[in-house]
Amino acid sequence: MTTVGILGGGQLARMMALAGAPLGLRFLVMDTVADACAGQFAPLIVGDWRDERALSEFASRVDVATFDFENVPAESAQWLAQRIPVFPSPRALAVAQDRLAEKTLFRELDIPVPEFADITSRADLDAAIARLGTPCILKTRRLGYDGKGQFRIRSAADTDAAWAALGAQAGTVGLILEGFVSFDRELSVVAVRGRDGEFRIWPLTENWHVDGVLSASLAPATVDAATAATAFEYARRLAESLDYVGVFALELFACGDVLLANELAPRVHNSGHWTIEGSETSQFQNHLRAVLGLPLGDTRMVGLACMLNWIGQMPDSAAVLREPGGHWHDYGKEPRAGRKVGHATLRADSRGALAEVLERVGQALQRPAQVAPVVAKLR
Amino acid sequence: MTTVGILGGGQLARMMALAGAPLGLRFLVMDTVADACAGQFAPLIVGDWRDERALSEFASRVDVATFDFENVPAESAQWLAQRIPVFPSPRALAVAQDRLAEKTLFRELDIPVPEFADITSRADLDAAIARLGTPCILKTRRLGYDGKGQFRIRSAADTDAAWAALGAQAGTVGLILEGFVSFDRELSVVAVRGRDGEFRIWPLTENWHVDGVLSASLAPATVDAATAATAFEYARRLAESLDYVGVFALELFACGDVLLANELAPRVHNSGHWTIEGSETSQFQNHLRAVLGLPLGDTRMVGLACMLNWIGQMPDSAAVLREPGGHWHDYGKEPRAGRKVGHATLRADSRGALAEVLERVGQALQRPAQVAPVVAKLR
Ligand SMILES: Nc1ncnc2c1ncn2[C@@H]1O[C@H](COP(=O)(O)OP(=O)(O)O)[C@@H](O)[C@H]1O
Ligand SMILES: Nc1ncnc2c1ncn2[C@@H]1O[C@H](COP(=O)(O)OP(=O)(O)O)[C@@H](O)[C@H]1O
Ligand SMILES: [Mg+2]
Ligand SMILES: [Mg+2]
Repeated sequence: MTTVGILGGGQLARMMALAGAPLGLRFLVMDTVADACAGQFAPLIVGDWRDERALSEFASRVDVATFDFENVPAESAQWLAQRIPVFPSPRALAVAQDRLAEKTLFRELDIPVPEFADITSRADLDAAIARLGTPCILKTRRLGYDGKGQFRIRSAADTDAAWAALGAQAGTVGLILEGFVSFDRELSVVAVRGRDGEFRIWPLTENWHVDGVLSASLAPATVDAATAATAFEYARRLAESLDYVGVFALELFACGDVLLANELAPRVHNSGHWTIEGSETSQFQNHLRAVLGLPLGDTRMVGLACMLNWIGQMPDSAAVLREPGGHWHDYGKEPRAGRKVGHATLRADSRGALAEVLERVGQALQRPAQVAPVVAKLR
Repeated sequence: MTTVGILGGGQLARMMALAGAPLGLRFLVMDTVADACAGQFAPLIVGDWRDERALSEFASRVDVATFDFENVPAESAQWLAQRIPVFPSPRALAVAQDRLAEKTLFRELDIPVPEFADITSRADLDAAIARLGTPCILKTRRLGYDGKGQFRIRSAADTDAAWAALGAQAGTVGLILEGFVSFDRELSVVAVRGRDGEFRIWPLTENWHVDGVLSASLAPATVDAATAATAFEYARRLAESLDYVGVFALELFACGDVLLANELAPRVHNSGHWTIEGSETSQFQNHLRAVLGLPLGDTRMVGLACMLNWIGQMPDSAAVLREPGGHWHDYGKEPRAGRKVGHATLRADSRGALAEVLERVGQALQRPAQVAPVVAKLR
């Protein structure tokens, strides 16, 4: 009997446990809060990430550890890795935790990135704005997620406001300035690499964000063969260089034929949730297969799938459950503004059929704006 | 937040909890043993089925109850139904618990059945063997499963042995004699009926038993339209007459064009396990949707699927996980002779491809005999 420890007990851990049960696995989740939603389906240890006693107990009860949460302190991951196998490695986690390290690595690997600059002072910021031009985005290097810890600078006149908002963090989590990319669309590669180096990706996914939070994903993204090959190659190169084990997502900005790497998520990813019903093997099960050294599962998909995120509170499920290809995912969380509480996946066999389903669902749930860009893309 | 109570904590409850989690459901399982495998993913109450204190606690903690185990005493089900909604109804359960009541109902509904006779004494048995002829099968009316509680009578000379084996149970669980059906094949209809009467079936499944235990299932079974319509109609008629809510299976013996009803399983069924990966909606999720009054999900399948049961102990998973359409289900049970400990589902897009996969898997796991009848059927 193998017990997989998961650091972080949110919806990703929850879906991982559900996907791993058929493999005969047991799970132990660690989180900082007692009502972490994965705790509904797996035993939960509550403790601070730096609490050595909690980490010790966790380590003593699991055979291997992985992450639902990428911002587990790198030292805690290292502490664990000295005691039990941890995948992905603390090094991969450390790189992905720091936008500067991440983008520096992308560049070293010849993966194109937006312009960026390390910002340690107000003077740096002024100089970098002058060099990169506007618009641009000031971001915290660490601990940002779902668009949090970002300030959009439309013109140099916004510099004061940006510094007022984030400047205090220059000396703590660090800051980075990025050139604003007026992308045509956002794509993600969700990929998996096994312990033996086997590497697979799911079909590319196109993503739509609202206020920095993923709103909808469509798979497969329509891309020409060259673009698909480029995305595959970037993801592969990145995985190799980090000796990465498990699932990760590489977020990309597509500007015509050019792909710029935005960030690496060192874990299963929201833009891969459609794989639960839309692919022969879900990202959750393949992550576990990779972490455990089992053969990787097939990543092909049948038909098309669109994932819609539910933020803040769950809508009524009936409109989705009524659809032949409608699948519902309620994470069992308390409603809270801005919180990812669930998602739906709509599957169909043709673009036209999927567009119709989305229109019906968007209307029934009074969320026409959420489905509109996906419908427009499908027509 | 809705909590579904499941009476019985085996693999069916386990797979139900895994399928219900995405609906935002919580589960509470009751079983007579503390290591019931569903308890790995849901809270568990351990108690005897007739223990009113345990039943009370169960009732107080759930919103609705259903079954993993069809032999929960009918009185316990009734006791619960007076307190909380229970689906399927205790009446449906009671009928399915008794082979005599079940076959009597089939006959009333004009659903053909094998010849049968109620056996309350040795004299009854002699008379019934004379009337039905041999071969025939003596079975306990209640509590039989996986071929247990059955005695095959090849000729009248076996009567003594049959009575020695089962006669003592004539006054307890009761006995029934059935004519032996030399069927061409065994089929099952897995069907679901909603609270509002909506009725759906999955494609028919062909099943192979070894020593009375399901060994392999293939879906869709190759049947002509008339046979499919007949099976659908029998299942519908049965569901209507019982005002059935939830998933059930109707086991059929096919003799040429004629379908004889063998038994009704008032729950999700081993021959429907392939629906987890082989159908848009699994039997487990549709059972919960039905029980909760939610819209039923699509029961169509894509391609073909073969399920192989693992009895006694789990084989090595790699041969299955290596197959693009290979899916593994380890129930997390201790190995034990005759115990259903897991299954695999192999999916493919064509009959030829599925046959090849099965041959590879059968060879790698040194179980050529288990896959042989399915391969023969596919070629
Ligand atoms: N340099 C940029 N140019 C244009 N849009 C950006 C840029 N950086 C971020 N965004 C937008 O904000 C979203 C969230 O930013 P991201 O850097 O991915 O942070 P997070 O970690 O919060 O996902 C992106 O998906 C994209 O829509
Ligand atoms: N009357 C019969 N004629 C031929 N085979 C039978 C008959 N009854 C049972 N069998 C065989 O035994 C298997 C198990 O019997 P069944 O009555 O379904 O009991 P269980 O409740 O154990 O599944 C059947 O699937 C079939 O293969
Ligand atoms: Mg991002
Ligand atoms: Mg049977």
